[in-house]
Amino acid sequence: MTGFREDGAAALEWAASYLERVRELPVLAQVEPGEIRRALPDSPPEVGESFSAVLRDLDEVLLPGITHWQHPGFFAYFATTGSEPGILAEFLAATLNVAQILWRASPAATELELVTMDWLAQLLGLPREWHGHIEDTASTSTLAALAAARQAFPGRVVLCSEHAHSSVEKAARLLGLAVQKVPADSEFRMRTDDLRDLEGACALVATVGTTSSTAVDPVAELAEICEREHVWLHVDAAYAGSAMVCPEFRWAWEGIERADSVVVNPHKWLLTPVDCSALWTRRPDDLHTAMTLVPEYLRSSDEDALNLSEYGPALGRRFRSLKLWAVLRCYGRVGLQERIREAVRLAEVFEGWVRNEPGWELVAPRPFSVVCFRREGSDEANADLLERVNASGEAFLSHTALDGRYVLRLA
Amino acid sequence: MTGFREDGAAALEWAASYLERVRELPVLAQVEPGEIRRALPDSPPEVGESFSAVLRDLDEVLLPGITHWQHPGFFAYFATTGSEPGILAEFLAATLNVAQILWRASPAATELELVTMDWLAQLLGLPREWHGHIEDTASTSTLAALAAARQAFPGRVVLCSEHAHSSVEKAARLLGLAVQKVPADSEFRMRTDDLRDLEGACALVATVGTTSSTAVDPVAELAEICEREHVWLHVDAAYAGSAMVCPEFRWAWEGIERADSVVVNPHKWLLTPVDCSALWTRRPDDLHTAMTLVPEYLRSSDEDALNLSEYGPALGRRFRSLKLWAVLRCYGRVGLQERIREAVRLAEVFEGWVRNEPGWELVAPRPFSVVCFRREGSDEANADLLERVNASGEAFLSHTALDGRYVLRLA
Repeated sequence: MTGFREDGAAALEWAASYLERVRELPVLAQVEPGEIRRALPDSPPEVGESFSAVLRDLDEVLLPGITHWQHPGFFAYFATTGSEPGILAEFLAATLNVAQILWRASPAATELELVTMDWLAQLLGLPREWHGHIEDTASTSTLAALAAARQAFPGRVVLCSEHAHSSVEKAARLLGLAVQKVPADSEFRMRTDDLRDLEGACALVATVGTTSSTAVDPVAELAEICEREHVWLHVDAAYAGSAMVCPEFRWAWEGIERADSVVVNPHKWLLTPVDCSALWTRRPDDLHTAMTLVPEYLRSSDEDALNLSEYGPALGRRFRSLKLWAVLRCYGRVGLQERIREAVRLAEVFEGWVRNEPGWELVAPRPFSVVCFRREGSDEANADLLERVNASGEAFLSHTALDGRYVLRLA
Repeated sequence: MTGFREDGAAALEWAASYLERVRELPVLAQVEPGEIRRALPDSPPEVGESFSAVLRDLDEVLLPGITHWQHPGFFAYFATTGSEPGILAEFLAATLNVAQILWRASPAATELELVTMDWLAQLLGLPREWHGHIEDTASTSTLAALAAARQAFPGRVVLCSEHAHSSVEKAARLLGLAVQKVPADSEFRMRTDDLRDLEGACALVATVGTTSSTAVDPVAELAEICEREHVWLHVDAAYAGSAMVCPEFRWAWEGIERADSVVVNPHKWLLTPVDCSALWTRRPDDLHTAMTLVPEYLRSSDEDALNLSEYGPALGRRFRSLKLWAVLRCYGRVGLQERIREAVRLAEVFEGWVRNEPGWELVAPRPFSVVCFRREGSDEANADLLERVNASGEAFLSHTALDGRYVLRLA
């Protein structure tokens, strides 16, 4: 190393220049499988190289193989948004390099996580008395929530919409639970007509903003059913939860205060770099019972302190709250609301274009910032169109299936 | 924000100055539970603040509550080591902010991960044909490995040493498997005398470098038993695996090529900031079968490409290989070996001091860089001593229990 200040200045210049020029790069990497791998050396170096060599190869070898999530033409999946304060805070977290295995391993990291989750609960209109902590992704948050559900209720089945995210099925599979898919209505919301008897179920997962179409399951109604049937209600609001910083979107999770757990990913739509998944629960004792395990080498005299590793699958926890804190500080409630509203406005504009363009159709309601549309014609023609758009490098869209048809998705 | 370059320069200066002055700060945070929380505002800001306000509060409010893992007096748990190239690469990864949900979401991230894991396999003397990928922590790696074991073999029991890490029990609990603890010998290694009949077991976990004492279970012998009994052998080398960059330590996992899976955490002893846990398996198909789930919205035309999310619990994967790559590049084989050997040399020096000091005793063999020792006298006296050392802020040690006695641990 030349020295941390010099190498750091070069890395900072690389990052600043990247953020400036990313819009000029092809958004979807235009490489074939194996191409990047073949461009990299077969073996590690024997002796150390300079950090400038790393930066050079990042530019020359890796960059052509990067799909640019920070590109303004990235409309695939969910447009994951990293912001400048979030990026810099991740750098500071790596500098501190604390591993929150228990409170005393970094008191400030644990307590900042609790405070930041309390702030976020306030911003999203969630009950402040809930327990909140951060996991890496919604897959892990859902795994933790369903483990708590299995702990709290006797059934071995998880119910969810046919449009629920694949992470529900993955978590259930890991936990040894069966999944039962509930059909959706014409607007892709979970139907409740047949949800009378939940015999054998320990959990029901409602989605607020499904991945395919951002449809919204009826939370209040499902909460009532779950309460009556003694089943854990987990709400997957990984994408749309961020929109709840704006009161005008809170219709979408009316009744949320009766859920048992909720996941919202600030790394999706709240300006925080991956990974940062916020999990709250109204039943922290069940989550704790499902997850706690304190061996002798981790016992400490800080008996009043909360060890967040006792609320999730991982023991070593990165200092993830620092970036969320930086984002909430640097944008404030008003700044976050502005950005959510602007994203929704742009989606409305695009939706209008599709509506008014002959030969195109909208195929799902658009409650938030994702537009589902297609060109009249065959699935093949639409798939071909998608591949041509993506091959241009100017925009990156993804697709989904709705009512058995191939649908384009602009996020 | 003032601007990314100015804010970034301030963050870089904060980081550089932190790394210079960290040795002057109390290594263990000298705060009471709740103290940091009370120093933080009760509510998030309404309007955005400057990034300089974040840096100021990091210094004034959070720093007194940080336990400094980068401090030269940090001897607790395992001395997790972040290095300068690793820190800067994490910053670059946050700038790129790719989420590796599948190959095309970032081809270079997927392929760099495969290359880096191949390099690391070469450095550690592992078979290159194994499948390797990165998880956040060993807890997740072990969860994935045991899910594959449950997939591959019919039993519902996981065997491990009484000194195995708590993550084995946590993973088994999540997976609905039972854990059977095998007694250890006088040097804290798993005893094999009673391991004749593994009826009902799907996996056995061997530990190379247990957390309590860094004892080494007999891998070759266990591999033979597991092969004969058709049981998955998972080797937890989360800490000691990094030492295998030096051939003179490879006695510790002789027979490793017959294991079914191995976990090594470069974020423990290989200069990589948290989180970076390397998982290899000889049976990628079983891991894939246990984990794969590709919904329509994630299907793509890149049929030859490997989606690493199909090999682990999470879908959204951070660009973790970038920091491991930077570390391997900037240190090279020789540089990594030097640092491992120096850590072991320092532990040997300390071990010598304890051996020659009347009133002190060594309580376990020291194969690597952890020394287990105690002062003659009661457990209470040793616990009290530990608290006094830690209260000084000059050094931070942790403890464990060996043979039912309270033992001090210097890592």
